[in-house]
Amino acid sequence: MDASYVVPGFDAAGIAAGIKKSGAPDFALIASRVPCRAAATFTQNAFPAAPVVYDKRLLALNPNGIHGVVINSGCANACTGVEGDANARRMAEAVEMALGAHDHSILVMSTGVIGVQLPMDKVAAAAPQAADQLRPDGWPAAAQAIMTTDTRPKLATRRTTIDGHEVRLTGIAKGAGMIHPDMATMLSAIVTDAAVAQPILQQALTAAIARSFNRISIDGDTSTNDTVLLLANGLAGNAEISGPGPALDAFQAALTGICAELAQAIVRDGEGVTKFVTIRIHGAASDEEAHRAANTVATSPLVKTAFFGSDANWGRILAAVGRAGIQVDPARCSLYVAGGPSARERMSELQLVSKGMPLAYAEADAAARFAQPEIDVRVDLGLGTGEATVWTCDLSHEYVSINGDYRS
Amino acid sequence: MDASYVVPGFDAAGIAAGIKKSGAPDFALIASRVPCRAAATFTQNAFPAAPVVYDKRLLALNPNGIHGVVINSGCANACTGVEGDANARRMAEAVEMALGAHDHSILVMSTGVIGVQLPMDKVAAAAPQAADQLRPDGWPAAAQAIMTTDTRPKLATRRTTIDGHEVRLTGIAKGAGMIHPDMATMLSAIVTDAAVAQPILQQALTAAIARSFNRISIDGDTSTNDTVLLLANGLAGNAEISGPGPALDAFQAALTGICAELAQAIVRDGEGVTKFVTIRIHGAASDEEAHRAANTVATSPLVKTAFFGSDANWGRILAAVGRAGIQVDPARCSLYVAGGPSARERMSELQLVSKGMPLAYAEADAAARFAQPEIDVRVDLGLGTGEATVWTCDLSHEYVSINGDYRS
Repeated sequence: MDASYVVPGFDAAGIAAGIKKSGAPDFALIASRVPCRAAATFTQNAFPAAPVVYDKRLLALNPNGIHGVVINSGCANACTGVEGDANARRMAEAVEMALGAHDHSILVMSTGVIGVQLPMDKVAAAAPQAADQLRPDGWPAAAQAIMTTDTRPKLATRRTTIDGHEVRLTGIAKGAGMIHPDMATMLSAIVTDAAVAQPILQQALTAAIARSFNRISIDGDTSTNDTVLLLANGLAGNAEISGPGPALDAFQAALTGICAELAQAIVRDGEGVTKFVTIRIHGAASDEEAHRAANTVATSPLVKTAFFGSDANWGRILAAVGRAGIQVDPARCSLYVAGGPSARERMSELQLVSKGMPLAYAEADAAARFAQPEIDVRVDLGLGTGEATVWTCDLSHEYVSINGDYRS
Repeated sequence: MDASYVVPGFDAAGIAAGIKKSGAPDFALIASRVPCRAAATFTQNAFPAAPVVYDKRLLALNPNGIHGVVINSGCANACTGVEGDANARRMAEAVEMALGAHDHSILVMSTGVIGVQLPMDKVAAAAPQAADQLRPDGWPAAAQAIMTTDTRPKLATRRTTIDGHEVRLTGIAKGAGMIHPDMATMLSAIVTDAAVAQPILQQALTAAIARSFNRISIDGDTSTNDTVLLLANGLAGNAEISGPGPALDAFQAALTGICAELAQAIVRDGEGVTKFVTIRIHGAASDEEAHRAANTVATSPLVKTAFFGSDANWGRILAAVGRAGIQVDPARCSLYVAGGPSARERMSELQLVSKGMPLAYAEADAAARFAQPEIDVRVDLGLGTGEATVWTCDLSHEYVSINGDYRS
């Protein structure tokens, strides 16, 4: 048994339920042997998918008695009306029956094509099969089963010490496209054996997401199904964390770390991605303005295609900052670029613009940095202390191919 | 002489000044033999290019004494600091000298790469050459000379009768990429021999743009150089239009028509475009909310790649509406699609969603509509009377190719 991802009290499984035409795994189950405190954030999209609506109600009803989550890929159960709502509920009930768990103790997530109903016969048959496959080391199988256009499963794990007790966290995520979280994100489920009071759990998750999943963008499209779920079963034996202090600090650091690792893994495996790009804006009038500017750069098709083409077309970066609707004084604005084969090996930063004036630089020096698989762009607005970092990627032919023909 | 585009008192020319590496025409001049009233709208980008800054000042100083406009392609003179500001002024002065026109009577526009200084020796040499080439029928040459990645020149003309006098309007435009106007637009220059008081001219232009250039999007990127200029020399002989009435109505209709024709021509010739898509949102809480939703659909990479792939992936359209930040009730929302080989030949509209529920439809019927070169999408939000129409296009491999390698 590969014990890397094991968290005491949790089991996971991933099987092929036949929802995907390809026959690939498409049905994941995560279960705790004891009830968990649960926290979650959801998409802000005005067309939330049926499982999002279901989970919100369930968490309001029973935030301290959650036994697990069932996740299918291949069908988003979004824009499916009242039939979709009933199907989300029936999917949870099928798993509750298979596990012998209480009513209203299983959460649901779905990802895949929008506007298609779940094949409920396949879901009903899969629930007991997945329950049979639950294993402490079932995390890679679960991560595999929630993939859509992802090319590889995304798992991360952390250990920390709280109160002298070892605490573990393990998380899985799926991304690939329609990635531009807005206070929530694509699908991710994270479990921990830490004992944490439910309001603190929600607060820690919200803080972690603000510095991880809410700092990435692949294409600026916010999904109908974005969900991040955190389950804590308390089996680590630490005194329950119920407020600020060193215990919460340690937990928060581990949680933010795992969220950032999963978020960056989603960008690196974005649809058609060939480059990983970090956009850092500082000197803004506020953090919010810096975030808005970084997001505008990160979602500009012209900037992203220039990254794809290794074209040091920095004017497009400033043009994107200029249309972000934030306070800008061109004469105070400076722009820098770095790049390297990895986050650890970086060529030195090259300054391209100083206080609004383009600097003389060797085209080859700029092109060499834009040609790297990891690129850092830094814009200093020279106005205030606001800053933000966003992780994004290039826009390639492959993205167009994948999304021009997603449903076939 | 091809008299189609002639407007009494105006001459136009387009020549190759050597600003473009390719040697293609890149220097256009439009001049009126008598002073014009001028109106304009400019980009809202916080990094306005030097010619935008120059023109704004000039129009404030001398809105009734404009003799023409000089336009270069191949270099945007944007993000070029104080040297760029001086170059815009020197470019106008070179043309004023060549024409024997007063100081502060020539406007300037530039389009092309950002962050590069204008080659002023070439500009200075081109000014008298272009002045020599001025002809009443020089419009196709001028339209050719302002192209960047455009594949064809864009010209339009209108005639109307005001006060028993024939009035003419002719306009040229360039677009292709970085097209998502915000209260202004890419480059366009429109001339008329109508006599119109300057404040009315500005008001008419603003109204026309709201229903034309501000209703198109190619990639959501707002350029640093967007400018629409309208020159009126008054030679038609009509009584000067100085307020509301049938004369202004006739002029407004012709002006809005020419702007809409040029705006649609820009979308049809957008970078890598294979489909022309009309997004109509109605039943919104307000016109502004409808416009925001239509814009969000029009700029969604997932929606645009689905159009490219002829994939009837309507869920992405609703998901885009759902993240537009407007009032939406999924249970009231309906979606329709039509398509055809041209605006005149349309297959009947197919309803895909009714009040939030996906309808049963033959996949072939939907796919046939998404495969057409002209596609109409209609979303009824079922809430109020707000409505908006936006014209957009698909996102193709060719867009990525063009923009991944724009500067080489």
